Amino acid sequence: MNLVSELALKGKQAKDAAYKLASISSQIKDKALEAMAYALVAQEEEILAANALDVEAGRNKGMSNALLDRLMLNKKRIEEMAEGLYALVSLPDPIGEVVRQWRRPNGLEIGQVRVPLGVVGIIYEARPNVTVDAAGLCLKTGNAVLLRGGSEAIRSNMAIVKVIAAAAEEAGLPSGSIQLVEDTSREVAQQMMTMNKYLDVLIPRGGAGLIQTVVKNATVPVIETGVGNCHVYVDSHADLDMAENIVINAKTHRPGVCNAMETLLVHQDVARKFLPHVGKRLQEMNVELRGCPRTLALIEGAKEATEEDYQTEYLDLILAVRVVDSFEEALAHIRRYSTGHSEAIVTNDYLRAREFTRCVDAAAVYVNASTRFTDGFQFGMGAEIGISTQKLHARGPMGLNEMTTIKYVCYGDGQIRQ
Amino acid sequence: MNLVSELALKGKQAKDAAYKLASISSQIKDKALEAMAYALVAQEEEILAANALDVEAGRNKGMSNALLDRLMLNKKRIEEMAEGLYALVSLPDPIGEVVRQWRRPNGLEIGQVRVPLGVVGIIYEARPNVTVDAAGLCLKTGNAVLLRGGSEAIRSNMAIVKVIAAAAEEAGLPSGSIQLVEDTSREVAQQMMTMNKYLDVLIPRGGAGLIQTVVKNATVPVIETGVGNCHVYVDSHADLDMAENIVINAKTHRPGVCNAMETLLVHQDVARKFLPHVGKRLQEMNVELRGCPRTLALIEGAKEATEEDYQTEYLDLILAVRVVDSFEEALAHIRRYSTGHSEAIVTNDYLRAREFTRCVDAAAVYVNASTRFTDGFQFGMGAEIGISTQKLHARGPMGLNEMTTIKYVCYGDGQIRQ
Repeated sequence: MNLVSELALKGKQAKDAAYKLASISSQIKDKALEAMAYALVAQEEEILAANALDVEAGRNKGMSNALLDRLMLNKKRIEEMAEGLYALVSLPDPIGEVVRQWRRPNGLEIGQVRVPLGVVGIIYEARPNVTVDAAGLCLKTGNAVLLRGGSEAIRSNMAIVKVIAAAAEEAGLPSGSIQLVEDTSREVAQQMMTMNKYLDVLIPRGGAGLIQTVVKNATVPVIETGVGNCHVYVDSHADLDMAENIVINAKTHRPGVCNAMETLLVHQDVARKFLPHVGKRLQEMNVELRGCPRTLALIEGAKEATEEDYQTEYLDLILAVRVVDSFEEALAHIRRYSTGHSEAIVTNDYLRAREFTRCVDAAAVYVNASTRFTDGFQFGMGAEIGISTQKLHARGPMGLNEMTTIKYVCYGDGQIRQ
Repeated sequence: MNLVSELALKGKQAKDAAYKLASISSQIKDKALEAMAYALVAQEEEILAANALDVEAGRNKGMSNALLDRLMLNKKRIEEMAEGLYALVSLPDPIGEVVRQWRRPNGLEIGQVRVPLGVVGIIYEARPNVTVDAAGLCLKTGNAVLLRGGSEAIRSNMAIVKVIAAAAEEAGLPSGSIQLVEDTSREVAQQMMTMNKYLDVLIPRGGAGLIQTVVKNATVPVIETGVGNCHVYVDSHADLDMAENIVINAKTHRPGVCNAMETLLVHQDVARKFLPHVGKRLQEMNVELRGCPRTLALIEGAKEATEEDYQTEYLDLILAVRVVDSFEEALAHIRRYSTGHSEAIVTNDYLRAREFTRCVDAAAVYVNASTRFTDGFQFGMGAEIGISTQKLHARGPMGLNEMTTIKYVCYGDGQIRQ
């Protein structure tokens, strides 16, 4: 197939599917999600065979073990993908919700009604599970989805989409609801980013490089799922046992994710009491510490932190540590280095807690809790497509509601404007 | 001043102002709005003198009378701008609203709190009143604003911003809350569109050309206020008197605005009864009619409509008219030509009313009412910055709520993730 025409054709099919999807009942959508989950497991051999070819090709190309692990599927991982789809079935369908409705003095009734976005484009990298996650979230919310995964996973993605698209169509969803762009060239990705005619929104999922490329090049509206350079600030009025638990949790519970702590700030009044012990515990858990001069004097074996350390989202067992003179200095540090993801203060001071929540400009601001809670399931929203660090449309965990828009439905009896 | 540095400097000042504005009380913001309104009238001589120079320069350059009229200020227009600011004072401040708050099983309380967007960039054309409107809406919602108006109005805009920025600062708002980019070159506008470091959102206000330029070139998230190719469909089950009133109102009440009707669709079963009379009335009101062959047979003096007519937002006393075979054909016509602004059906058929509201993909969908109601004041939201025809963040009238974002504020007692 000519590659430009692949995109245009699939874009048009997605648009047509989206038109029909907007009116389809929750029953049919849920039936389709169940059918997709069932088919994934029933046809796992086919998917695993395709995946084995991707993994082999990756190994031959010298792909790192970490990347190969992301790429690799097995029965357990396919089961997990299926479980993710089943979990969506039990969530309420946001489409059709009347967010609010009111009557104007002239009798016109105006309802704000939740409707699908339309066609969602997803540009992502090597993890084939994104294919299923994204398709499930889009369908549950009545959106058609156009998927464009990385070349490393193309065989896996083709096998997965073949299985789930057929199951969805069989269950009654319009053909074209789930499609994969099979050309993984850069040119086609570029073109997809400017396909305003067919795409209503574009969501990049992957590393910072991918996300920046999409933000820079897209004319289709983008939702940016972002980088998390997250801080925990231990105030002079903190409960230090609580602070220790939160710090250990925020750094070590899962260091490779965007809501993990990357820099610890400690008020100078409690640094001497707090840092030696917590530093030792972190080191015992294999966390490398990079500190300011005052930190170095309190934690044996810590390296000196550079300016770059404060800017870095390590996504690893590394932590920058800085002793600050005051609450205000902590706020200033966060303001300078925060990427607006998740920021925490540990304090029992009422005024500082209030000021922290008011002044810190981030998707999630915590008082006396770990940053690790910034997550759709932890917030009680269910599955999410990512954590938005931008301010338009969605901020924080992007669950089902964030995959929708609204329209105003106005009921009249012949009202005209005076 | 070096022009690149003007932008960077003002961007940084706006960012700093936004940080402070986020915590400023409604009282101070409202006091500032009142002071700005008062100052506009008190210092109108200065503004009118600057405006007279703009108008003179425009006339010398051969600017059309319509454009000169948009550019020109007088005492009445300055009073209207001031009234717009006073009207904002009486509206509730959306900032700080807890949209919802809930408690998780682990005791963590999560609140979704309304906060300002940060720094809003406005790129607009020749109307100096946009300067005041936009600044007022941004300040009321705790946003700093960076204004970039057209070169034709630069003296007027400088005079206005000088007056209102001084009044706002005097009333207690941070310096840098309202700023004008004084370099009106294309290069600086270009640069502003990619100033992600300082701008949180960009709103173009003006004609389709300006909006498309911004959408195409901006990397800063854009809210698109759009074109309205709006339809009224008169169904076979319509009350024809009601339909006539709605059609006349939607076309002639104010033909130059985006929610005016541009194409009338009439079901063939009522065309013979409906069109001759309504056509005559429209013609008496100087509306030029461009119709399909069946329309031409029913309305004397109508011209033949071309494909282009159905695509055109006339913004003028011109109307395309088409007789359709069926309800489905009306839906298909609207799906094909609609720009997603405002669409109306006139019918007493329950099922068709339901299907129309469900299937038509537009910011506002009407049953038995004029499209002219798509407007912040008419919807009861108060002042608006435009009508969004995009689906992300804001759709329909963009009032105060749409100039905000949310953040999650999480209150814990030491919760860590298990």
